[in-house]
Amino acid sequence: SQDLGIAKEEDFVLTSTTREEVTAASLSNVEDGDTLYVLQDKNQELSAQVRERVSFLPHYDTIVKGGMYEYYASEGQNPLPYAFAELIDNALAAVSDNKTSRKIEIRLHLDDNYIFVLDNGRGMSSRQLNNWAVYRLSKFIRKEKKALEEEIERLPFNAPRSLNSDISYFGVGGKQAVFFIGSSTRMITRPKGHQDVHELTISKDQFEEKEKNREAIYSGFIRNRKAADACHTNEGEELLRDVILEEKDKDCFTTVVITGINPTHIPYLKGNFNAWTTQLAHIYHFYLHGPNGNVANESERSKFFKNIDISVKLCVRGREPQVMHLRDVVNDMQTRCIRTAASAFEFKATVEGTGIVEGVLRYHPFLYDKETFPHDPFEIKEEDQEETSDTRPARGRRPIFECYWNGRLIPYTCIEDFDWCAAPKKAKHVPLECFNRVSGVLWTNDKFQVSTNKLTFMDLEMRLKDKNTAYCRVIGKNQEKRTDIGKEFSSWLAECHEKHDKQIRFSHFTGSTLRPDL
Amino acid sequence: SQDLGIAKEEDFVLTSTTREEVTAASLSNVEDGDTLYVLQDKNQELSAQVRERVSFLPHYDTIVKGGMYEYYASEGQNPLPYAFAELIDNALAAVSDNKTSRKIEIRLHLDDNYIFVLDNGRGMSSRQLNNWAVYRLSKFIRKEKKALEEEIERLPFNAPRSLNSDISYFGVGGKQAVFFIGSSTRMITRPKGHQDVHELTISKDQFEEKEKNREAIYSGFIRNRKAADACHTNEGEELLRDVILEEKDKDCFTTVVITGINPTHIPYLKGNFNAWTTQLAHIYHFYLHGPNGNVANESERSKFFKNIDISVKLCVRGREPQVMHLRDVVNDMQTRCIRTAASAFEFKATVEGTGIVEGVLRYHPFLYDKETFPHDPFEIKEEDQEETSDTRPARGRRPIFECYWNGRLIPYTCIEDFDWCAAPKKAKHVPLECFNRVSGVLWTNDKFQVSTNKLTFMDLEMRLKDKNTAYCRVIGKNQEKRTDIGKEFSSWLAECHEKHDKQIRFSHFTGSTLRPDL
Ligand SMILES: Nc1ncnc2c1ncn2[C@@H]1O[C@H](COP(=O)(O)OP(=O)(O)OP(=O)(O)O)[C@@H](O)[C@H]1O
Ligand SMILES: Nc1ncnc2c1ncn2[C@@H]1O[C@H](COP(=O)(O)OP(=O)(O)OP(=O)(O)O)[C@@H](O)[C@H]1O
Ligand SMILES: [Mg+2]
Ligand SMILES: [Mg+2]
Repeated sequence: SQDLGIAKEEDFVLTSTTREEVTAASLSNVEDGDTLYVLQDKNQELSAQVRERVSFLPHYDTIVKGGMYEYYASEGQNPLPYAFAELIDNALAAVSDNKTSRKIEIRLHLDDNYIFVLDNGRGMSSRQLNNWAVYRLSKFIRKEKKALEEEIERLPFNAPRSLNSDISYFGVGGKQAVFFIGSSTRMITRPKGHQDVHELTISKDQFEEKEKNREAIYSGFIRNRKAADACHTNEGEELLRDVILEEKDKDCFTTVVITGINPTHIPYLKGNFNAWTTQLAHIYHFYLHGPNGNVANESERSKFFKNIDISVKLCVRGREPQVMHLRDVVNDMQTRCIRTAASAFEFKATVEGTGIVEGVLRYHPFLYDKETFPHDPFEIKEEDQEETSDTRPARGRRPIFECYWNGRLIPYTCIEDFDWCAAPKKAKHVPLECFNRVSGVLWTNDKFQVSTNKLTFMDLEMRLKDKNTAYCRVIGKNQEKRTDIGKEFSSWLAECHEKHDKQIRFSHFTGSTLRPDL
Repeated sequence: SQDLGIAKEEDFVLTSTTREEVTAASLSNVEDGDTLYVLQDKNQELSAQVRERVSFLPHYDTIVKGGMYEYYASEGQNPLPYAFAELIDNALAAVSDNKTSRKIEIRLHLDDNYIFVLDNGRGMSSRQLNNWAVYRLSKFIRKEKKALEEEIERLPFNAPRSLNSDISYFGVGGKQAVFFIGSSTRMITRPKGHQDVHELTISKDQFEEKEKNREAIYSGFIRNRKAADACHTNEGEELLRDVILEEKDKDCFTTVVITGINPTHIPYLKGNFNAWTTQLAHIYHFYLHGPNGNVANESERSKFFKNIDISVKLCVRGREPQVMHLRDVVNDMQTRCIRTAASAFEFKATVEGTGIVEGVLRYHPFLYDKETFPHDPFEIKEEDQEETSDTRPARGRRPIFECYWNGRLIPYTCIEDFDWCAAPKKAKHVPLECFNRVSGVLWTNDKFQVSTNKLTFMDLEMRLKDKNTAYCRVIGKNQEKRTDIGKEFSSWLAECHEKHDKQIRFSHFTGSTLRPDL
């Protein structure tokens, strides 16, 4: 209805920018904000350049499908534990300056389609809760500058083995995880020192609804209320109500409520409870047990991290709930490695431009009639594995090193070996099989980068194998030995073999005897 | 300035939702849209629940850093070729129904900080160009329903070896790639059958500028103009202007213009030109040479895909430009495997609920004094590799199978072997080393899922190794053999060994003789 300055007698056509003529019949195809041309004929050349305003808001699948193609399976592993790990990461960061208990609880009510992840950490203000929902808003670019500075000051940068509780980086982990697990998330949180509880829900249904109604996709409401006020819950939400009523006894906290659980996850979560809780215990081994890990001798275990309690509770209707405190797990691979090790070899790698990687090698001796190198009880064995050629003893063909980033396992990056600890082609001082009795761990902080799904390191192996990377053995309380690490390793390995391998060799078979005393 | 219904004599405080008092001094901290409370005292309990409107637009790092932690390096490989591959994927999809030539060109002007990726495909309308910029708007949810239906109809679903030219899935690839390579992208495109050219630029600087000015982050302008109209280019943009002037001679096309090239990429792109173009030739091997690959005998090579021409041109100041047509590459691993193979064993896997995976195994015989299994000339050899134990002949410890998805290589997923083709523990009919003379390829379509960065399959190995997956040998033109595949494989391998392995054994060393005829 604007005057376009067209003389009455002129012929003209109205077209879209794709040069389709807009007629009375096709008018309904024109959408709000579409640019139209007034032309003398449909195929007229544009006499001048035309700028057409467009908007390109990321589709909500950015959030809803963020994790779907990221936590992929590998080597027969189900990726679900890694999604839960993202939520534990966030909770561990949140409890990092709790004075007394650091409590993290996963509660699975699978028959009722609820998963709760609760922590008694510092919680979030409504502004922080709002920021939680902003995809890719990492702590490095967040507006709450003051808080960040405090946070950085608080961080124990020289934490042994990088157990700094600062396991956040990209601003995507939590969102990817919850939408991998289910289709709707309610965050309930009460920040430290404040009396109000804040709630925010984002869900696939909401997004779809808003798209349908042409509302702003990325907007919603934070609900501010007093603690334990559940008057906004509906019928059928009894479990949610119960969790809200628990707020009465709590100081600060965060509760992640996931619903719309992807049905394909349910059989795995129910049927493989031991396997996946053990995997979580493995991922957080050093947070659960301190820098020395879950050594058998309790007096040697670190007390520093002892008040971390991560538990998983599985509620299935008609059965007693099953609870697993991750620090009670003793069959995770780290515990097994630590407890079967006869000797340890600690070292440091100094990497150009970044700092320090800590490492340990452990020797799992041959005792009497078998290797003591531990086996993962949950490993899926291929049926015919046993029959293939090239079976190597003890560690088999697995790489030596597992790698931890800020104290948590990055599961898909393993490092085979380094020059100085690889088996030579021909045995020199020790039998070749001794090289296969070695397991190892590496610890880095976030000076090394990981992929957004925290499943792989991006640059660790390359930089560790750089020719400028220097290795040295560490003895006792952080004392570095100047001797060539290869020599140190060789003599350590030779010593391990001599001292710890105990092989019985039967020289002559004389027939079997029945021992009546057994 | 609203009347809040507070009686004059009442005392009240104004606080933020974090209960910080808003005073004249702190008023500047209050941002637009912030919710404030009017309370009797700062710590008063909320008498009723309060809903506070929030918005949580994804941060622009969603786009700008989308690829940064995704195209990670692995095993010493530089991930840059995989970023270029995303742009080639898009171009291949765009040229899929070109009748005559299908031309894709990468031009690198590294001294001038420009990279162009040009194709003569169907281009994009301004609406489609707008959709290009929408992160995570996959073809499955796009609004241009009509176009999609046409597209689906057009797709050769039964393309041999899944060479269907339909290498798009998530709606993120191109954006991730360009922002991994540089910091600004201009898309220039002219859709098939239309005379107008459309341009859209998105860049890190733009995003930052808009954030600073509190403008809508995800909005911009598409410039519509006639072909070869470069009047909007500035001084210093001569290369861009030249590319625009080339539009004169073109029908439909798309040109991706990347600037702000990440300086860390430049030495690699210049110094490893042969290595990374060869890697691209490997990724698109079957698009370049057809389903049979780059066989030595030209008459056996497929003509179907012959009009695909992907080229890379490297311009460095003061040197002649270097041009590589990918179909001329003969030292990529696929070509080497195909050309050293003495025999091939084709098979099919029928996977529950999905359809078909095609596969081939090839035998690389031992000839006279050495293995013919090819070696990757660009592989980074670890210095001490040779000295370690457990060196196996020919393929070494590498997995057998490389895997292609919709005809393009998914580089990080390799499959070691299947039960029926794995080496047994003890040699039975053929020597064990014969099993190590085998290479293989698997082809799937998008019934199998890949991760968003197209570097790994998510479920291929698991589903192939499922007990319900059935394998059968394929002979000649798609004829399936019913016999047990393990038996078929064994007899094929035995035959390969007998017919093709030619070993000379010198029984007795009698001293060296100088042959005067050489
Ligand atoms: N349980 C929690 N307690 C307190 N704050 C939390 C909690 N979970 C998340 N947050 C806040 O929300 C932010 C976003 O979490 P999210 O996991 O999505 O990304 P991130 O942790 O910042 O980065 P990453 O992608 O590495 O996980 C966190 O940085 C943190 O400030
Ligand atoms: N060279 C091109 N010619 C024509 N259309 C293109 C071209 N490049 C991109 N597009 C269009 O832009 C869309 C977005 O491209 P982008 O690579 O970001 O995601 P995608 O290809 O849809 O999915 P994926 O994440 O699997 O790459 C494509 O689906 C296609 O419609
Ligand atoms: Mg996180
Ligand atoms: Mg793409």
